[in-house]
Amino acid sequence: MNMMISLDGYSSGPNQTAENPFGEGGMQLTEWVFPLKAFREMHGEEGGEVNASGPIVAGWLQGVGATVMGRNMFGGGPGPWGDWQGYWGDDPPYHHPVFVLTHHPREPLEMQGGTTFHFVTDGIEAALERAKEAAGDKDVAIGGGASAIQQYLAAGLLDELLLSVVPVILGGGSRPFDNLGDARPKLEQIQVVEAPGVTHLRYRVT
Amino acid sequence: MNMMISLDGYSSGPNQTAENPFGEGGMQLTEWVFPLKAFREMHGEEGGEVNASGPIVAGWLQGVGATVMGRNMFGGGPGPWGDWQGYWGDDPPYHHPVFVLTHHPREPLEMQGGTTFHFVTDGIEAALERAKEAAGDKDVAIGGGASAIQQYLAAGLLDELLLSVVPVILGGGSRPFDNLGDARPKLEQIQVVEAPGVTHLRYRVT
Repeated sequence: MNMMISLDGYSSGPNQTAENPFGEGGMQLTEWVFPLKAFREMHGEEGGEVNASGPIVAGWLQGVGATVMGRNMFGGGPGPWGDWQGYWGDDPPYHHPVFVLTHHPREPLEMQGGTTFHFVTDGIEAALERAKEAAGDKDVAIGGGASAIQQYLAAGLLDELLLSVVPVILGGGSRPFDNLGDARPKLEQIQVVEAPGVTHLRYRVT
Repeated sequence: MNMMISLDGYSSGPNQTAENPFGEGGMQLTEWVFPLKAFREMHGEEGGEVNASGPIVAGWLQGVGATVMGRNMFGGGPGPWGDWQGYWGDDPPYHHPVFVLTHHPREPLEMQGGTTFHFVTDGIEAALERAKEAAGDKDVAIGGGASAIQQYLAAGLLDELLLSVVPVILGGGSRPFDNLGDARPKLEQIQVVEAPGVTHLRYRVT
């Protein structure tokens, strides 16, 4: 899994809404990423900055054959589904199957460019199994948000964590490492990358 | 200020006691530091490991002319003072005046090697003023713990933060960046040092 996180441990700010999916102040977590060439390419745009964050961002999807994400990260508000199609437009950057955790059934949603959103109502293990099957030899990425991360961490189902630590203090929101109880994983630091306005920390679950 | 911090943002674990000043699990925050030559020298011991953490640890006291710390970091439990003399033995590693925030008056406590503990009952600004005066041209360090850091951050009195991020999830304890309200400082990342079992992140308050 990878996520952007504040110095006080939040991956989104308080009062998330459909219009403001990162919550109040939460967009500060993402400011380092938008100017990057690697990020712009991922979204079909040209130009952009080249720095040490580039390979990290490119690596988000390299070798990844399927993604799992929480309902809140896919968006569209709580409750039964309307016609919400995610935050990523007609051609999402995934280009592989994406399994969305939800309590509300919905038919698969096929987007352009190879991304299909599947809606999984029978829990995190089932979603991961389906993602592993879809990914084949490739990796499965857990996209977020905080609640999905908490559940996968507590279940001991994550192998590797990539945290992009942004020098901001949000003061509220969702913390991916809260609510783990005694199921807190043991971690080993395996990579550190200093980049403008962010530090990338990679850990292996041991 | 410098402090060791867990991935979930705690500088100490839950249930701090005099016998366990870092709280439950909190000693995991310090494991990287004890084997270091730089740390052992600071405490009058020989030998030890040399790695990228060495200059960081040596820098904790380089150019520092006075330290401020909270009552809880000095220790000895809450309430009026007994004969507690701190966690650092007869010859503490500071070798300069240390100002301890407390609600309970106490005469200065002169230790060996140039460390004198002064007990300040009139608040964080007063303690900082006295520390600045004592430090002269040198820097003042805010030693912690979390509550003291929170108060100095909220008052806008810190210039620089050094976080040593340890790959552990504590699940409870004290978080130095909590309770800041709208007084959260703006930070600029100025240094990143990767070292075995820890990453050091230095930020300037802008």
